[in-house]
Amino acid sequence: MAVDNRKADASLESLHRIFTVPEAPESTLGLIEQKISQNLNEFLRTHIAASEKPLAEIEKDFSSADIPESPTFVSDHTQFLLNKLVAQSVHTSAPSFIGHMTSALPYFLMPLSKIMIGLNQNLVKIETSKAFTPLERQVLGMIHNLIFNEDESFYQQWMHSANHSLGAFCSGGTIANITALWVARNNVLKPDGEFRGVAQEGLFRAMKHYGYDDLAVLVSERGHYSLKKAADVLGIGRDCVIPVKTDDNNRVRLDELRATLNSLKARNIKPFAIVGVAGTTETGNIDPLDQLADIAVEHDCHFHVDAAWGGATLMSNKYRPLLKGIERADSVTIDAHKQLYVPMGAGMVIFKNPASVAAIEHHAEYILRKGSKDLGSHTLEGSRSGMAMLLFASMNIISRPGYEMLINNSIEKAKYFAELIKQDPDFELITEPELCLLTYRYVPAETQKALQVANTGDRLVLLEALNDLTKFIQKRQRESGKSFVSRTRLTPEKWGHKITTVFRVVLANPLTTNDILKSVLEEQKELAQESLHSLPQIRQLTARILRQ
Amino acid sequence: MAVDNRKADASLESLHRIFTVPEAPESTLGLIEQKISQNLNEFLRTHIAASEKPLAEIEKDFSSADIPESPTFVSDHTQFLLNKLVAQSVHTSAPSFIGHMTSALPYFLMPLSKIMIGLNQNLVKIETSKAFTPLERQVLGMIHNLIFNEDESFYQQWMHSANHSLGAFCSGGTIANITALWVARNNVLKPDGEFRGVAQEGLFRAMKHYGYDDLAVLVSERGHYSLKKAADVLGIGRDCVIPVKTDDNNRVRLDELRATLNSLKARNIKPFAIVGVAGTTETGNIDPLDQLADIAVEHDCHFHVDAAWGGATLMSNKYRPLLKGIERADSVTIDAHKQLYVPMGAGMVIFKNPASVAAIEHHAEYILRKGSKDLGSHTLEGSRSGMAMLLFASMNIISRPGYEMLINNSIEKAKYFAELIKQDPDFELITEPELCLLTYRYVPAETQKALQVANTGDRLVLLEALNDLTKFIQKRQRESGKSFVSRTRLTPEKWGHKITTVFRVVLANPLTTNDILKSVLEEQKELAQESLHSLPQIRQLTARILRQ
Repeated sequence: MAVDNRKADASLESLHRIFTVPEAPESTLGLIEQKISQNLNEFLRTHIAASEKPLAEIEKDFSSADIPESPTFVSDHTQFLLNKLVAQSVHTSAPSFIGHMTSALPYFLMPLSKIMIGLNQNLVKIETSKAFTPLERQVLGMIHNLIFNEDESFYQQWMHSANHSLGAFCSGGTIANITALWVARNNVLKPDGEFRGVAQEGLFRAMKHYGYDDLAVLVSERGHYSLKKAADVLGIGRDCVIPVKTDDNNRVRLDELRATLNSLKARNIKPFAIVGVAGTTETGNIDPLDQLADIAVEHDCHFHVDAAWGGATLMSNKYRPLLKGIERADSVTIDAHKQLYVPMGAGMVIFKNPASVAAIEHHAEYILRKGSKDLGSHTLEGSRSGMAMLLFASMNIISRPGYEMLINNSIEKAKYFAELIKQDPDFELITEPELCLLTYRYVPAETQKALQVANTGDRLVLLEALNDLTKFIQKRQRESGKSFVSRTRLTPEKWGHKITTVFRVVLANPLTTNDILKSVLEEQKELAQESLHSLPQIRQLTARILRQ
Repeated sequence: MAVDNRKADASLESLHRIFTVPEAPESTLGLIEQKISQNLNEFLRTHIAASEKPLAEIEKDFSSADIPESPTFVSDHTQFLLNKLVAQSVHTSAPSFIGHMTSALPYFLMPLSKIMIGLNQNLVKIETSKAFTPLERQVLGMIHNLIFNEDESFYQQWMHSANHSLGAFCSGGTIANITALWVARNNVLKPDGEFRGVAQEGLFRAMKHYGYDDLAVLVSERGHYSLKKAADVLGIGRDCVIPVKTDDNNRVRLDELRATLNSLKARNIKPFAIVGVAGTTETGNIDPLDQLADIAVEHDCHFHVDAAWGGATLMSNKYRPLLKGIERADSVTIDAHKQLYVPMGAGMVIFKNPASVAAIEHHAEYILRKGSKDLGSHTLEGSRSGMAMLLFASMNIISRPGYEMLINNSIEKAKYFAELIKQDPDFELITEPELCLLTYRYVPAETQKALQVANTGDRLVLLEALNDLTKFIQKRQRESGKSFVSRTRLTPEKWGHKITTVFRVVLANPLTTNDILKSVLEEQKELAQESLHSLPQIRQLTARILRQ
C-alpha cells in the first residue's frame, strides 16, 4: 500500500487541505487513477473479480449504518473500494458482456468527465452555469435537428430563445418519458375559460371541467415499464396505460390500436397520448411510426416516441429509414448513455414545437425569473450537472459518420450472430434483429423435432423445462464471469403465446468480435450439459415423443 | 497546441481505437487532466475568465444545430472547450464566490469520480451494479441513521431487505421532494375495498372514491419552488400547495398553520401533507419541526421535511438541536451535493418507515422482478449512476467529526460576517444567520436615518431606489469577476412587507476567509459609487428628508 502523505485527523487545518492539496501521484488513489488513464479496459479486467460472489456475501462488507466517528486515510479507503466495491462491480464494458445496454466508453470521456466534475456547474440557471447553458441548448438543438431536421432559421430563432425550449436534458429515459406525458397531460387539460388548467387546479377539477370519465395513454404491450410509472406519478393511474397487442415482430398492431381508440371513446374515455416504441427494450423492434402519426392526428392525440434505445439509429443514413415517421412526433425520448456512448445519466426529451414546454413552465423568486434563459424553468429536475458537455464533445469528436459506422456495425454484428444461431442446430432464434438486439434459446436439435410433433400436454412440459434450462444456463454463465447475456420472458406466437424464457443479447459494444460471439454459444452449450435436472428431463421426454 | 497522435478519420478501425487507446499524457487533454489533478483550484482560477462576457456573445460559439459531418481531433476539440466553455463557466469553487450553494470539492473526489464514471454501473438493478447496490443501500442506511437514529437491529433488518427501502438516491432535491409527495399522495388515496388505489386507478377515481373536494399540501411561504412543481406533476395542482405565513425569522407560523388546516377541512379539502423547511433556500431558516410533527399527527398528515440544504447540519452535534423534531418526519429530503460536498447530482429522499416505498413499488418483466433487491423498483428515476459511491467515500474519509467542523465553521463564519455588516454603518443586515446563510443590503448611514423619519410616500420611493441600487451592485460585482453574492427578494416586516431586494450569501466554502468577507463589503461600497442613477437619487431624497 502506498504511503499517504496527508494526516487522517480532523483538524480544521487538515480539512482545509482536503479542499486544496491534490492527490499525490504516488498515493494509492494517484496510482489507480494513472492506471485507469493508461488503459481503462485493462484496469477493469484486472480488478473486477471474474467469478461471482453471492450478494449476501457482498452485503457483509456494506452492513453498518454508522457514519464513522474517525476519519480514514484516503489510501486506506481507496484500497477498500478497490477490494470490496470495484472488484465486485459489473464489467459493463467487457466485449463479452453482451446483455447490457451499457457498453464501453470512448477513452476521451474519462478526462473530460473530470473537467465536468471539477467545474461542478449547476445547469438549473445561468448564474451557476454560464456557457454551459448555451452549450446544453445547442446539444438539444443538435438532437432536435437529428430527429426533426428543421431548417437553419428554425434553430436560429428558437434554440436560444428565453421563453422556449427544444427539450430537456435529464438523468434518463424515465424522466424523459414522464416529462413528455406531463406536457401532453397539461395540454389536453389546459386552461379553458374560467378553468385555469390542470397544472394550477389539479386533475380532479380538470376532469370535471372537461367532462371525461377517464384518460388513456396507448402503447404496445412491449412499451417500457416507465410509462406505467409515469401514469402513476402523473395521477393518471397505471390502468390508464392501455397495452395494445403486437404482431409477430413485436410491433404494435394498427387494427388493434384503432379498435382500442374507438372503444375508449365510446366509453367517454379520452385517449390523449399515443406512444410509439422505437427500439423495444426486450427485442429492439420499432413500431410503424408513420402510421402511428396518422392515427394520432386523426384522434387528436399527443404522439410521443420512446426512442430511448433506438434514437441513436438516426445517426445512420443507412438505417435511419427504420424510424420513418419519428419526424412527425410531438415529443421524443432518447438516451445518450445508451448508443451514443456517453456515461450513465444523459437522457433527453425533445419537443417538435419549441412552445410545447410552456405547459410545464415555472418560475421562482430568486431564480428562473421570467424572461431569463435559465434551463430550469422547463425541466422536471432542479439542480443538474453539466453532462450535456460529454455528448457535445462526443458528437464533435466522433461526428455523425463515425456514429453511423458504430450503429451500422452493431446492427450487422447482430445479423451475423443471428446467422450463427440459425446455423447451429441446437439453438433457436426467437426474435430476428431489427436493431442490434436479438433473443434466442438453447434447444437441442432432437427436441426441436419433438416439439413439432408433440401433443399439447407434452409440449407444455417441454416448454417449461426449456424455460428452466435457459434460466439455468444464463445464471451459470453470469456466475462463471467470462461472458454475460441477459434473459427475459416473451410470449411468441410460434409457441402459442406461452411464456418463453429467452437469452437477450445487445450488441452495442464496438469491441465485441465475431470470435467472442462464437465462444458465447460454445460456452452455453457446455453449460447446458451441467444441468442435472432440466436437460435430462428434456432428453427423456424428447426421446419418448420421437419414439411414438 | 500539443500534437494529437490519433487520426481524425472515421474508419471503423480508428473508431475502435477511441474505445481502447488511452489519452497520451502529452496531448492537450492529457496535459489539462494533469493540471486539474495537480491543483484544481489553480486550474480553474487560471482558465475561467475573470470578467464576464455577455450571454449573447457566448451564444455565438454555440449556435449551430448541425451535427458535424467530419470528426475533430480530440486535442482541437479540447482546446475549443477550454477557450469557449471552461473559460466562460462559473468558478463555483472560488472562495470569494459566496452566492452559490455549490462549493469547493475535496480533492479526492476527482480521481474517485473517474473510477465511478469508468465503471459506468447502472444502479437500476443488481445485474448492472452488483456491489454498488448494497453500497447504495448502506449509504441510505447511514443517512437514515443520521436523521432517525434507530438502533442497530433496525438497520440489520431493513437496510438490505428486498421488499423495503430506507429511501431513494436521486439526481437532486426536486426529484426527492416529488418522490416524498408521491408516496404521501398514494398513501392517502390508497386501495380501499373495491378501489385499487390512486396508483392503479388515477386521481380522478380516487377523489370520487374518498369523497374529498380537493387535496392540499401545506408549507411556509418560504418553501422551495419544487413543491409547486411536484404538485403540478402529481396532478394535485399548484393551487393546492397552500403557503402559510412566516414570522420575522422566516419560520412557519403555527397559529396560521392550524387556522389554515381547520379552514381547509371545513371546506372538505383533505390536507394530506405538511412540509417543514429545514434551511430555507433564501435565508437558511428552520421551521419548528417538533411542533410541526405534533400538528401532523393531530391532523393525520404525512410529515415531510425539506432539508435539502439544512440536512447536513445533523452532522454537527453542536447545531443538530436546531433541527429537533426531524426524527419524527415521515420523509426527509437531503442533497449531498450541497453541504456534504460531493459533486452535482446527489439527492436523497429518506423514509422513516422502510415499508413506505411500497406505495410506489413497480416491477417489470426483465428486471425489478418481485423479491429482487433491485433499487429501481422504488425510485422515480430508472437508470442511474453510482454517485452514492462518492458520498460513501466522503463520509468515510472526512468522518462525522470532520463534517461537524466544516458545518460549525460555516455557521460561525456567517455569524462573523453578520457582525461585520452590523458594525458597518452603511450596511443593513436583513436576516440573521441561523445556518450559514444571511441577507443584507447596502444602505448609506444617512439614508438609514432618513428611512426612520420619512413619510410613507418618501419611504416607498427610497425603498424602490434601494432595490435598484442593490441590483446594480450585485450585477456589477458579478460582472467584474472578483467575487459573487447572489440576490433575492424578500418582504421583511420591518419594511411593511414591501418587496425588498437583498444580497444573499451562502458561506459553505471552507476556503472563504475573513479577509475575503471584508473585501466583498469593500468592493460593494466602491461599486455603489459607480451608480449614476440610484445612488444620487437616494442621496438627494435622504438630504431632503433629513432637512425637513
